[in-house]
Amino acid sequence: MKKPSRPTILITNDDSVYSKGICELIKIAREFGDVVVVAPDRVRSGMSRAITHAEPMRLNMLHKEDGFVVYSSSGTPVDCVKLAFFALFKEKRPELLLSGINHGSNASVNAVYSATVGAAIEGCVNNVPSVALSLCDHDENADFSHILPVVRSIIEKTLTNPLPYATYLNVNFPTGELAGVKVCRQADARWSEEYDQKVSDYGDVSYLLAGYFDDREPQSQDTDEWALTHQCASIVPSKVDMTNYECLSQLKDLYGTI
Amino acid sequence: MKKPSRPTILITNDDSVYSKGICELIKIAREFGDVVVVAPDRVRSGMSRAITHAEPMRLNMLHKEDGFVVYSSSGTPVDCVKLAFFALFKEKRPELLLSGINHGSNASVNAVYSATVGAAIEGCVNNVPSVALSLCDHDENADFSHILPVVRSIIEKTLTNPLPYATYLNVNFPTGELAGVKVCRQADARWSEEYDQKVSDYGDVSYLLAGYFDDREPQSQDTDEWALTHQCASIVPSKVDMTNYECLSQLKDLYGTI
Repeated sequence: MKKPSRPTILITNDDSVYSKGICELIKIAREFGDVVVVAPDRVRSGMSRAITHAEPMRLNMLHKEDGFVVYSSSGTPVDCVKLAFFALFKEKRPELLLSGINHGSNASVNAVYSATVGAAIEGCVNNVPSVALSLCDHDENADFSHILPVVRSIIEKTLTNPLPYATYLNVNFPTGELAGVKVCRQADARWSEEYDQKVSDYGDVSYLLAGYFDDREPQSQDTDEWALTHQCASIVPSKVDMTNYECLSQLKDLYGTI
Repeated sequence: MKKPSRPTILITNDDSVYSKGICELIKIAREFGDVVVVAPDRVRSGMSRAITHAEPMRLNMLHKEDGFVVYSSSGTPVDCVKLAFFALFKEKRPELLLSGINHGSNASVNAVYSATVGAAIEGCVNNVPSVALSLCDHDENADFSHILPVVRSIIEKTLTNPLPYATYLNVNFPTGELAGVKVCRQADARWSEEYDQKVSDYGDVSYLLAGYFDDREPQSQDTDEWALTHQCASIVPSKVDMTNYECLSQLKDLYGTI
């Protein structure tokens, strides 16, 4: 008798294939389906949706057993997803793409710079249901245990309910006890541009990024930042399409007459 | 008598400070105001909104005269904008950020991977009116002459009319004669994941990106791709906020009960 078919889940991240967060995610994903991991061979945080187009990349198999295979790649997280689709999913796309679990927040403006989110966008562009998952804790030994039941529920729901077209989920978890789950919007925030300046013996100045986070609307209760500061997981349904439709007609009047 | 104050325009790109496109943009921008250039010291195409956070960066002055200064940086285009704000615009932000003119299209899904667009997003996050400009021609000696009058008009209009909050412009130009300017939305498109595979004498496989562009809605007349294929410049007002508001309530029902 033919085995009942299990979904295939593609997993990537930006903290590298060796991070604790991806290992925790793999364990849970394997409860639901066959798992293919294609993740960077080194830390590629802050790479956003960067792609490698001028140099060749490698794809190295690290592990293989029935229903579970692990590759590392020299590419960015977006490259990992593209390479996986090209080399491993030519016949049939995976049923789900999971990116993470990231060590550190990807809420609000962090989503702009995040390669965890970048990988989810690449899945979404290719019509694969995609979820970015992050814990607000940069520690390489971060404790993920309190969020695993919710990660499990999100995987289960996303496998059984199609996401809206061209939409992925950006999920963030606070540290400490979870008070709930909020489906919410991306907060309006920024990082201040602060750098540590260092002057060499030869007078050369170098700059090392060292900003602080500035939530511009801490009172708004419908944002991901509000959810996280109130001990809730945040789920932001996010679009590939960046068009600001609300101002199209206003700007048509202004620029359409050039 | 005090000189009437001219606006300050920050210029960056992702093709490097030495590209033809940025030189053309600088020439026009200097008609309108004082110009500060902070651009990558090498090609950083496809870097999206990537930031450098684990290694120090350089900022080297290449040229200085009254009302015009040029720096190169070892960082990504987003780093260039952040570094400029930190090191050169502490007291007062520039009145305008221009990113480009890029050699190659940044319309539709290209905007996701584009560092030309990434730099405009970074300006926008920091409340500086920001415009990404690209010509659909990768040639390093591309002819920009036919688009310069329209670039001039866009700069003039953007300096005198505030852009909507947290919104930047993604502008693309076709090659050949311009038939008009369209304010439009981002087309639904993707790049196929195709790679050139090469096997070394030792059996190692390497992958070099070589996809083709797939416009999923070539019949839609309100997209940037349609504008470009009909010889029009496309202007897409684009948002930093990626939330899909239309599906918030639907997904609240599904995930909010976890």
